[in-house]
Amino acid sequence: MTDDPCVFCAIVRGEAEASLIYEDDDVVAFTDHAPVTPGHLLVVPRTHAIGLEDLAEEDGARVWSVAHLLGRALRRSPLRCEGVNLFLADGEAAFQEVFHVHLHVFPRFAGDTFRISADWRVRARAELDESAAAVRAGLAELSPTVQP
Amino acid sequence: MTDDPCVFCAIVRGEAEASLIYEDDDVVAFTDHAPVTPGHLLVVPRTHAIGLEDLAEEDGARVWSVAHLLGRALRRSPLRCEGVNLFLADGEAAFQEVFHVHLHVFPRFAGDTFRISADWRVRARAELDESAAAVRAGLAELSPTVQP
Ligand SMILES: [Zn+2]
Ligand SMILES: [Zn+2]
Repeated sequence: MTDDPCVFCAIVRGEAEASLIYEDDDVVAFTDHAPVTPGHLLVVPRTHAIGLEDLAEEDGARVWSVAHLLGRALRRSPLRCEGVNLFLADGEAAFQEVFHVHLHVFPRFAGDTFRISADWRVRARAELDESAAAVRAGLAELSPTVQP
Repeated sequence: MTDDPCVFCAIVRGEAEASLIYEDDDVVAFTDHAPVTPGHLLVVPRTHAIGLEDLAEEDGARVWSVAHLLGRALRRSPLRCEGVNLFLADGEAAFQEVFHVHLHVFPRFAGDTFRISADWRVRARAELDESAAAVRAGLAELSPTVQP
């Protein structure tokens, strides 16, 4: 809950228009209003969280489980679906636009318009090892008890 | 287990080179060899599954939980990280390239090279409602006992 006008909280409360797909005590799923492909849906926790940092572990696990289920449902639906993408944007730098954490699930098919691009070059092992050590340092910071 | 030479199974068995970040009884996390940004990592279940369809629900939940943890670890690492993306490609049409299910987790920052594009137009409510009904039909097919 928040005093800010969060559109996903309004959908969760039934106060904003949405094309609902699934709901239970923990999560709600509804269509993205600007879909990549027909069937593009969002799974959100009922409890407001901005992103991965303040999302309760159990709420995250529920969001994932429902996304897993709905990804499999897409392949059984009458919609065109030859593949499925899951996508989550945590933070403005990661293209998050609504600051109530949400997991995108959308069908893919040959000839659709979704594209991703990046400077994908295979990196030297030493460089990858250095990155891995840096992530492990972050993990140690977060959770001294976790043994990587 | 499979007779096919699956590179992620080989990494899980310790038989292929990888820059390991985290491992436990259920999942292994290591760097992507062609990272979008430094710190780009993959979380995979130890048990071979191709995608969402054959992935055990519990294994999926473990993959998510570790991705959630490592996404938070990235923000505490010395790596540049102003945001985090999670991405999963299920099927060749969805850009899956290694057919052992894996969840990408990568840092984002202003000026990085990652971009996504699609024909994102806001759709009419009737069209969204129709898509929602189609996904619910797929869900009913999958799981007659789930009440959407
Ligand atoms: Zn909210
Ligand atoms: Zn494998």
